[in-house]
Amino acid sequence: MTAELITGIGELTTNDAPRSGESTRLPGAALVIENGRVAWIGSASRAPDADSRTDVGGRAVLPGWVDTHTHLVFAGDRSAEFESRMAGHAYQAGGIGTTVTATREASEHELVANAKRLAAEALRQGTTFLETKTGYGLDLESETRSARAASSVADVVTFLGAHIVPSGIDRDEYLRLVTGPMLQAVAPLVDFIDVFCETGAFDAEESRAVLLAGRAAGLGLRVHGNQLGHGDGVRLAVELGASSVDHCNHLAAADIDALASSTTVATLLPACDLSTREPLAPARALLDAGAHIALATNCNPGTSYTTSMQYCVATAVLQMRLTVTEAVWAATRGAARSVARDDGVDSVGSLRVGAIADLQVLDAPSVSHLAYRPGVPLTSAVWRHGTRVTAVPSAF
Amino acid sequence: MTAELITGIGELTTNDAPRSGESTRLPGAALVIENGRVAWIGSASRAPDADSRTDVGGRAVLPGWVDTHTHLVFAGDRSAEFESRMAGHAYQAGGIGTTVTATREASEHELVANAKRLAAEALRQGTTFLETKTGYGLDLESETRSARAASSVADVVTFLGAHIVPSGIDRDEYLRLVTGPMLQAVAPLVDFIDVFCETGAFDAEESRAVLLAGRAAGLGLRVHGNQLGHGDGVRLAVELGASSVDHCNHLAAADIDALASSTTVATLLPACDLSTREPLAPARALLDAGAHIALATNCNPGTSYTTSMQYCVATAVLQMRLTVTEAVWAATRGAARSVARDDGVDSVGSLRVGAIADLQVLDAPSVSHLAYRPGVPLTSAVWRHGTRVTAVPSAF
Repeated sequence: MTAELITGIGELTTNDAPRSGESTRLPGAALVIENGRVAWIGSASRAPDADSRTDVGGRAVLPGWVDTHTHLVFAGDRSAEFESRMAGHAYQAGGIGTTVTATREASEHELVANAKRLAAEALRQGTTFLETKTGYGLDLESETRSARAASSVADVVTFLGAHIVPSGIDRDEYLRLVTGPMLQAVAPLVDFIDVFCETGAFDAEESRAVLLAGRAAGLGLRVHGNQLGHGDGVRLAVELGASSVDHCNHLAAADIDALASSTTVATLLPACDLSTREPLAPARALLDAGAHIALATNCNPGTSYTTSMQYCVATAVLQMRLTVTEAVWAATRGAARSVARDDGVDSVGSLRVGAIADLQVLDAPSVSHLAYRPGVPLTSAVWRHGTRVTAVPSAF
Repeated sequence: MTAELITGIGELTTNDAPRSGESTRLPGAALVIENGRVAWIGSASRAPDADSRTDVGGRAVLPGWVDTHTHLVFAGDRSAEFESRMAGHAYQAGGIGTTVTATREASEHELVANAKRLAAEALRQGTTFLETKTGYGLDLESETRSARAASSVADVVTFLGAHIVPSGIDRDEYLRLVTGPMLQAVAPLVDFIDVFCETGAFDAEESRAVLLAGRAAGLGLRVHGNQLGHGDGVRLAVELGASSVDHCNHLAAADIDALASSTTVATLLPACDLSTREPLAPARALLDAGAHIALATNCNPGTSYTTSMQYCVATAVLQMRLTVTEAVWAATRGAARSVARDDGVDSVGSLRVGAIADLQVLDAPSVSHLAYRPGVPLTSAVWRHGTRVTAVPSAF
């Protein structure tokens, strides 16, 4: 295997610390990639020989983004609904149901092609690790098809049969399906089970039943919770030791305390918050209490149709009062923790010897520019699994 | 001269209406460019023959961004100051003075190179028309040098000698310099005069003196006002018939009424508002009252270091309650109005027969995606003065 030396690094963010901290941004460092892994990190003046050498000209290097909350398997478009909502008109479209109808009608090939388009768009912007979910099929065949499609584009797949109760089926019957035959069908294809624990979706007891069935089938646990109001999602996630509880817009002090005393990561979705005009999640309070947080896009066609982790990081700094270092950590190693990939042999989200060599180069000397220069596309090169990604050219 | 037909347009935003309106977004249109101008617009099914033909594959086409508030002529970096401010530390750096020191020390060649780098970055993101300012020189020689540098990159140049009173000179003496010898030196190089009418910069009477001197020298008038508090900037701008008053974060009802009854454009700078944590300007109230607004980046190294008009448009929709159509208008034809280029022989910001052929293609079927997909770089091709722009490749 050949070794590649990355040198000329203006600032190297390693995330090599137990928690987010300033000390993980190093000047004057170099890095060697070998066998798809980080093989060496140290001072550029002591860099070893390598088969090839890339000088990044003083630019900042950091781990690739780890986006652990996306819904890339869908068909259709909801831009008209979005535009109407932004213009202040009452929310009256079919919402999730609109996408379910379109997704059921699409072929598996179409679902894969659409998801791959979005994954490629994310990769160009520095996202080297993706979680994605089912949840727009909501019948046995469509969820299974969605799980296969998800597996073809994402590093981690989550089963979200319990997104909503679809129309045309009795509530209890649907819960039996989700926790029974549907779960059995998708379990070999997925890593986590998830439930939308919210008024209008599933209540606490229903959510518990879904999660326990998933655990019995060998899956990790995730929860959509506390998005639209003070609900039971966070409490339930902590009680069951879920890997992540996502959204967290409406948290009582007891929710924050519970998260701070738990191993559950609070995955915050600022682009979704802005696109739905929910209050931004209390990121500062969570960190100050000692909770673990992640930042993710929630890429989906209804409430957050973005693949831009940079936008999430900039929003977290400008509007949620995270420091730049904290926001970058939450979008890389913090997110990796929410899928149990922050440490060990397949770790992502940090640049340490032995970690997977997923990294990005910014057209800037420091990660501070991610928030200092909001909206400017800064990712100028990406390595995934040790190989430099070739950008997909424009289609015309 | 050869004619180029642009066809396959999913949605064409023409801005061909007296004010922002839904009617200016057309399906199924085509456009012909000839001699650097828009030569024909109509239904694709009736498009004339042309020497060449570009099919944009169902993508949206709209005017290039018109960014009428930037400060591109500077040297140095203030990312550490930014990061410290975001971390909640008290603002204690030298602010504008830091940049003045660095700008005076830089060579004209360095100033031009830095401004050109930013103008090229903006152009790649769809900005085809730029205003930029002096204001970091603040002595006769440095302001003159800055005005020359600005002329080499921008379509419209503004003299902002009255940015602050620099250290080392008496206040009255500096005002005599700005309204006298400095103004005489820069007047042949610039189009507008501007003043920072704000507590800590210049008061209403000083600002009036600066603006009247500029008018006597044949310059148009712009004002920085009402950024940090309720001040006299808006009142003064309206009274003197200024083309634009910029910032407008703190407006009393009387200020909004005054703007609504005037020809002065309120130029709003949402990226700056977020980067300084000032309240977002009351865009919705201004439009509802009947005022003219523009959106601009305020690109500068201290308080808004972005070239992304797309970020400003998305923020205006998501957080300032503009419709997508209103925000796009404000960032194109609304902005053109603030530099008196919205109508007539050299008009920009609209796509009408005879207008300058400055246009961009989005990697999306509609301008709605500019806010529906925040942070995703959507501009995929740009024509400036009728010629397709070739993207500058990455530097390594």
